[in-house]
Amino acid sequence: MAIRYPNGKKYAAVQSASVQKSKSNKSITYSNRGMTLEDDINQSNLYYLDTAIAVIHKKPTPVQIVDVHYPKRSAAVIKEAYFKQASTTDYNGVYKGHYIDFEAKETKNKTSFPLKNFHDHQITHMKQVLSQKGICFVLLRFSLTDEVYLIDAAFLIDAYEDQTERKSLSKQTIETNGYLISLGLAPRLDYLSIVQKVYLT
Amino acid sequence: MAIRYPNGKKYAAVQSASVQKSKSNKSITYSNRGMTLEDDINQSNLYYLDTAIAVIHKKPTPVQIVDVHYPKRSAAVIKEAYFKQASTTDYNGVYKGHYIDFEAKETKNKTSFPLKNFHDHQITHMKQVLSQKGICFVLLRFSLTDEVYLIDAAFLIDAYEDQTERKSLSKQTIETNGYLISLGLAPRLDYLSIVQKVYLT
Repeated sequence: MAIRYPNGKKYAAVQSASVQKSKSNKSITYSNRGMTLEDDINQSNLYYLDTAIAVIHKKPTPVQIVDVHYPKRSAAVIKEAYFKQASTTDYNGVYKGHYIDFEAKETKNKTSFPLKNFHDHQITHMKQVLSQKGICFVLLRFSLTDEVYLIDAAFLIDAYEDQTERKSLSKQTIETNGYLISLGLAPRLDYLSIVQKVYLT
Repeated sequence: MAIRYPNGKKYAAVQSASVQKSKSNKSITYSNRGMTLEDDINQSNLYYLDTAIAVIHKKPTPVQIVDVHYPKRSAAVIKEAYFKQASTTDYNGVYKGHYIDFEAKETKNKTSFPLKNFHDHQITHMKQVLSQKGICFVLLRFSLTDEVYLIDAAFLIDAYEDQTERKSLSKQTIETNGYLISLGLAPRLDYLSIVQKVYLT
């Protein structure tokens, strides 16, 4: 869900990140524009949707619902529920017929991206997507410098499975093997222009 | 999330449908095998995943989280939350590089399928997917006879937008314009064989 501002130009993503993500520190505001990576991606996806460039959505946070009350004359209230481990990545959708699937992570490190940001089930899902010829990648943000890189899933999977020597991707490795995404206004994070260049041309 | 049974052959989907769907009557058990359409689809998707045929998941039920407690030494508990309207269809994924997107509905009617089972936002989403060249359809089940039909999204959209005369799809229309899906054991509902035939050959 997102609010369109009256001028019809600005896109603001209100995924209620502050509540839903409070367990994972993502609600902390960062650097330049006080927006999280998730906010930027949601705004960009809304832009892509409204301009008919692509249909890409964030999946809802998976929740195990235990108790629901049904008060008279008002909406059902969930009274007890727990966060569940997601079995896939957070974002997917379609761009010119192609299946797009990705995960987004940020770090406050300056010189490397810790691989512990990813989990086994996410890596498994990425492998499955690649085996179905889906376009799969991760968006990595260095929060302090507000740099966002696209890294192909196959590269990430290799690094993840070979953590005997390194438990992180060095910034230099990311610069060499990834693609820096330019920041703008609409979309704020034009990752599909990189997807077009890397996967479709 | 799904449980694999020890014999490695049976697939059982436990999407906690009984709790999550109690508001929409979907937890009622039907006919032959006591399985809802959602159960059948989840089981089939698990089969497709394990046999590397496709990667298709049901999206989590969207929930607006209002209050979360963080007890010491145990998991965070959501104490207040509400069901949100989904902005997309329930299922999507990738099959041989193709983006797959669908919604599933069942009725206890015998002679027609009421169009009120669909909502504006779902129809809008289907249009968006079609405009991106995604493969988009609905699975309709007549619960009492346990017949499941695949109907192309473009056909459904036309019927939905032309409800001046009819507010439902007649069974005969569905038989003529849809594709009956054969029921089996693994997968219980082999809708991808129909997708292959209708969209990819």
